[in-house]
Amino acid sequence: MNLKEMRILVTNDDGYEAKGLWALVKAARKFGEVTVITPDGARSGMSHAITMHHPLRIKQYLNEEQFPYYRTNGTPVDCVKLGQKVVLKNKKIDLVLSGINHGSNSSVSLIYSGTMAAAIEASFENIPAIGFSLLDYSSEADFEASTVICEQIIEKILQHPFPLKTALNVNIPKGKLEDIKGCKITRQTCGYWHEDLIEHIDTFGNPYYWLTGHLENTDTEFGGCEEALKANYVSIQPVQHDLTAYQYMGKFKFLEK
Amino acid sequence: MNLKEMRILVTNDDGYEAKGLWALVKAARKFGEVTVITPDGARSGMSHAITMHHPLRIKQYLNEEQFPYYRTNGTPVDCVKLGQKVVLKNKKIDLVLSGINHGSNSSVSLIYSGTMAAAIEASFENIPAIGFSLLDYSSEADFEASTVICEQIIEKILQHPFPLKTALNVNIPKGKLEDIKGCKITRQTCGYWHEDLIEHIDTFGNPYYWLTGHLENTDTEFGGCEEALKANYVSIQPVQHDLTAYQYMGKFKFLEK
Repeated sequence: MNLKEMRILVTNDDGYEAKGLWALVKAARKFGEVTVITPDGARSGMSHAITMHHPLRIKQYLNEEQFPYYRTNGTPVDCVKLGQKVVLKNKKIDLVLSGINHGSNSSVSLIYSGTMAAAIEASFENIPAIGFSLLDYSSEADFEASTVICEQIIEKILQHPFPLKTALNVNIPKGKLEDIKGCKITRQTCGYWHEDLIEHIDTFGNPYYWLTGHLENTDTEFGGCEEALKANYVSIQPVQHDLTAYQYMGKFKFLEK
Repeated sequence: MNLKEMRILVTNDDGYEAKGLWALVKAARKFGEVTVITPDGARSGMSHAITMHHPLRIKQYLNEEQFPYYRTNGTPVDCVKLGQKVVLKNKKIDLVLSGINHGSNSSVSLIYSGTMAAAIEASFENIPAIGFSLLDYSSEADFEASTVICEQIIEKILQHPFPLKTALNVNIPKGKLEDIKGCKITRQTCGYWHEDLIEHIDTFGNPYYWLTGHLENTDTEFGGCEEALKANYVSIQPVQHDLTAYQYMGKFKFLEK
């Protein structure tokens, strides 16, 4: 296929104002015709949520460079569904790109990630899909190096067959291009969010809570995404959506009696 | 441990008014001290979403039988976090139960499920956790047989060690207890939601969309949850949260160059 004939859908979970979205759109436009569908505000931590209890809206806008894109009141996964069914009317999509997320989606953060859920949603119908995340939480985050890395990865991906029902979780270390040592294929690091819910008191004397915490890395083996990122490598992780714990199916046989 | 000393947290994604929640609470109370934390309305399809962009609220109420429970504006996963951190103040929780969901969480529905996400969230910290779902979408759904099945499964689970970082996805066929043939340990059936977004027009002439669809079963092997449920067995599925597609790690080695 001529690259310019490729139909690419770009989405994210940080919404239409996110610098990372437009960095990814810039990279994507080198490879084909890009349709952008993005939430109308921040949707971090939305995981694979879909909108079932209120109607979805979608509307076209122009960005500062007069490039047309769509905003919706939905989740990142809704963006993919709206892209397939409403905007592109079931035309074949060749590639779904999600991000560039403002912050890491390594280890268990993958499970909470709207960025990655959008990519995984595309993989259900065997559309090659990549979620990109930059390990920089600063509002001044610089997406220059990560834009180049996205381009390099997309270019290589397009030269190889993409496995069915798979998406890629790409996490990019913060910093300049010359500081990044290369790319590693990784597995998901074991860990969980060690959290607290901080209590505040509102004007009326009622408590409310904000979630806070840090990732607790409980991994003891080599090859995890956290290890690669700490060593300043880009972590590239093939992910799938079969959650069966095959290793424990035998252990629960007593429930069949 | 004396059963009555067990600390059990019960939650769901259908909210405090759901019949299935109170059916599960009834079953759970036979096994220990039950704390109920439930969303203040329906949260179906919320997957592993957490609340990051507005504050969480939680408040105690009494149900019709004067049994105290908590309602929150959060997601099912938030319910587990609020239970651990705010309500039970980091006391050890022995069991997390989620459901009984009003509708199936078999096959790929597991990925979209708030019921199962709450159970999986508990498994991150090695709390034994079970999500229960009844394959009945009717507003008149009868939870009598499923309540008995929940009790039977909880009783057996408490007699065996529970594997780490694992939750159980239990789906129960619709119908009377005598019609259910038994329990099968299953793997996740391959499939995806074949969907459409139906367009409607509001009072002001603007379009809006509602998601609709059906599960497309693409599985070709034996042992999946859909197969067990169709044969009128309860499907019991151990699930875990490592999404790495280990079988494809080698295929992407070209990206390391």
